[in-house]
Amino acid sequence: MTSSDFSIACLGGGHGLYQTLLAARELEPSQINAVVTVADDGGSSGRIRRELGIIPPGDLRMALAALAHNDTDGDLWRTLLQHRFGGHGAMAGHSVGNMIIAGLTEDLGSTQEALDIVAKWTRSAGRVMPACLQPLDLEADVAGLDDDPRVVRSVRGQVAVATTPGSVRRVRLIPEQPEVNPEAVDAIINADLVTIGPGSWFSSVIPHVLVPEVVEALNRTSAKVVVILNLSPEAGETHGFTTERHIHVLGQHALDLRVDAFIADNYISPTSGEKAHLRRAAESLGASIEYYDVHVADESGASLNKHDPEKLAAALRDLYSKRS
Amino acid sequence: MTSSDFSIACLGGGHGLYQTLLAARELEPSQINAVVTVADDGGSSGRIRRELGIIPPGDLRMALAALAHNDTDGDLWRTLLQHRFGGHGAMAGHSVGNMIIAGLTEDLGSTQEALDIVAKWTRSAGRVMPACLQPLDLEADVAGLDDDPRVVRSVRGQVAVATTPGSVRRVRLIPEQPEVNPEAVDAIINADLVTIGPGSWFSSVIPHVLVPEVVEALNRTSAKVVVILNLSPEAGETHGFTTERHIHVLGQHALDLRVDAFIADNYISPTSGEKAHLRRAAESLGASIEYYDVHVADESGASLNKHDPEKLAAALRDLYSKRS
Repeated sequence: MTSSDFSIACLGGGHGLYQTLLAARELEPSQINAVVTVADDGGSSGRIRRELGIIPPGDLRMALAALAHNDTDGDLWRTLLQHRFGGHGAMAGHSVGNMIIAGLTEDLGSTQEALDIVAKWTRSAGRVMPACLQPLDLEADVAGLDDDPRVVRSVRGQVAVATTPGSVRRVRLIPEQPEVNPEAVDAIINADLVTIGPGSWFSSVIPHVLVPEVVEALNRTSAKVVVILNLSPEAGETHGFTTERHIHVLGQHALDLRVDAFIADNYISPTSGEKAHLRRAAESLGASIEYYDVHVADESGASLNKHDPEKLAAALRDLYSKRS
Repeated sequence: MTSSDFSIACLGGGHGLYQTLLAARELEPSQINAVVTVADDGGSSGRIRRELGIIPPGDLRMALAALAHNDTDGDLWRTLLQHRFGGHGAMAGHSVGNMIIAGLTEDLGSTQEALDIVAKWTRSAGRVMPACLQPLDLEADVAGLDDDPRVVRSVRGQVAVATTPGSVRRVRLIPEQPEVNPEAVDAIINADLVTIGPGSWFSSVIPHVLVPEVVEALNRTSAKVVVILNLSPEAGETHGFTTERHIHVLGQHALDLRVDAFIADNYISPTSGEKAHLRRAAESLGASIEYYDVHVADESGASLNKHDPEKLAAALRDLYSKRS
């Protein structure tokens, strides 16, 4: 995979994408393209998006930090991009990287150009691209917010969806037909390997497959398309979800989507009955399900709910080599 | 002056220092060191200083912008450093360069290291150094605020001093014995040419000579020390001041200070009587007064109250070559 012409596209957002990008670097491909969700409305990103009307920069910044060159200067860039101001003033919680992306976006009139400049300055291992060229909103149908569990309410905003005490049934993007980033489509089409996830399932992963052009590109590419499943359910978004249900809700949100494989951590140790269910769920998207040890373990071997970049790289390498 | 070992130190702040640094670049010295006042408490700088307790970054940022490499990438850095957010939110008026300096200062625990990193990234034509290693406050004795013109009141803060409707008599630094930046002292000692000003006389120029170690270095250096006089009085700080009075108040604030020359713009066309007064004022600091055309002119030849970098460079070159 260290061939002179091997390209990986990694779809996701937040901390999950960060770990996947570290894994992608381990594979030493000729090109890494991070395709990032832009529906965030929380924290520094949310404040910047509301104040300046630009694409929320937080997840883009995190991807740039993951890809900054590995030397003293790159480390300093990584630290600066991720630096958050403390205190209790107007700047508290804002990250410097978000300011840099926002400022360059205003200077250049293009988020993609701004990201490419930061990538150049940080001697990035790849490119970072927003999936869409406009800030998106997330809206969810949520059950369990009323005494009557059959009542489904609409909850709007990424933070609201991620923290709802109810059970998320379905998410939508607003606008429903957002303007896709053609660079992101090209990155998927021209890839040899595409990863989706892990990450906040409803707010970082599923938004990608709600964009019709992204699904089309995923179905058209000759790349191997691999979904990296989360290590555990998340409070708020996917509380109580089984791994099988994660697969099901992905498919429900993109009925046409076909993928090649799901990577599940073997720490979940399903029974043979559960394995059959998981296999069937994966098959409904045309995929196999593959078990690998991909978690960061504590001293006792327990999963720390974080993907280990080296283990994940080994899994991806193995999966790719199986390609027929 | 393009010799392989010619060093210029430029003392000042704000827009005046910006123009001087552009002039210094024209001389193509082997080293430029910008020594910058750190008593600003207005705008983005003032908000950052109050919120984070660091040296106000604004004047340091502007000097870095003046020195950024002259090519496409350097221009983009210059634009980003100077970029100010608009709107009406918490970030309105903040500049990205201030955030970068503030973030790096917190990361590295040193303003000087932070500035040197930005200088490296921007392939700077020189170094930028704060005169002192702590944020300073400015306090002024101001007359004319009461009905009785003899009443002198104390006004605190750079913005308050710069905008007072009264007449500034004297300024002080708080603390009165601030911690000098040893790098700034070295830059003066090791320079071949030192410039002071132009700029807001009480808030950007005089604060330098209120630091005892700076005066000591100016008197000890073998460099030619040149004060660049303002083109006109400034509303607030020096309203109604003659050029002669600018020289006098500088001397009054640093009784021991000796300089080699004052540069006055020949646009002020003094009478022979005024010339005699100016000569005498300059001589009280051991200096000559030299007249050059150094202003940016409009189409009719009138001064735009801005020093022209090329003209100023020619004046400095001429003055330096006269050195005995």
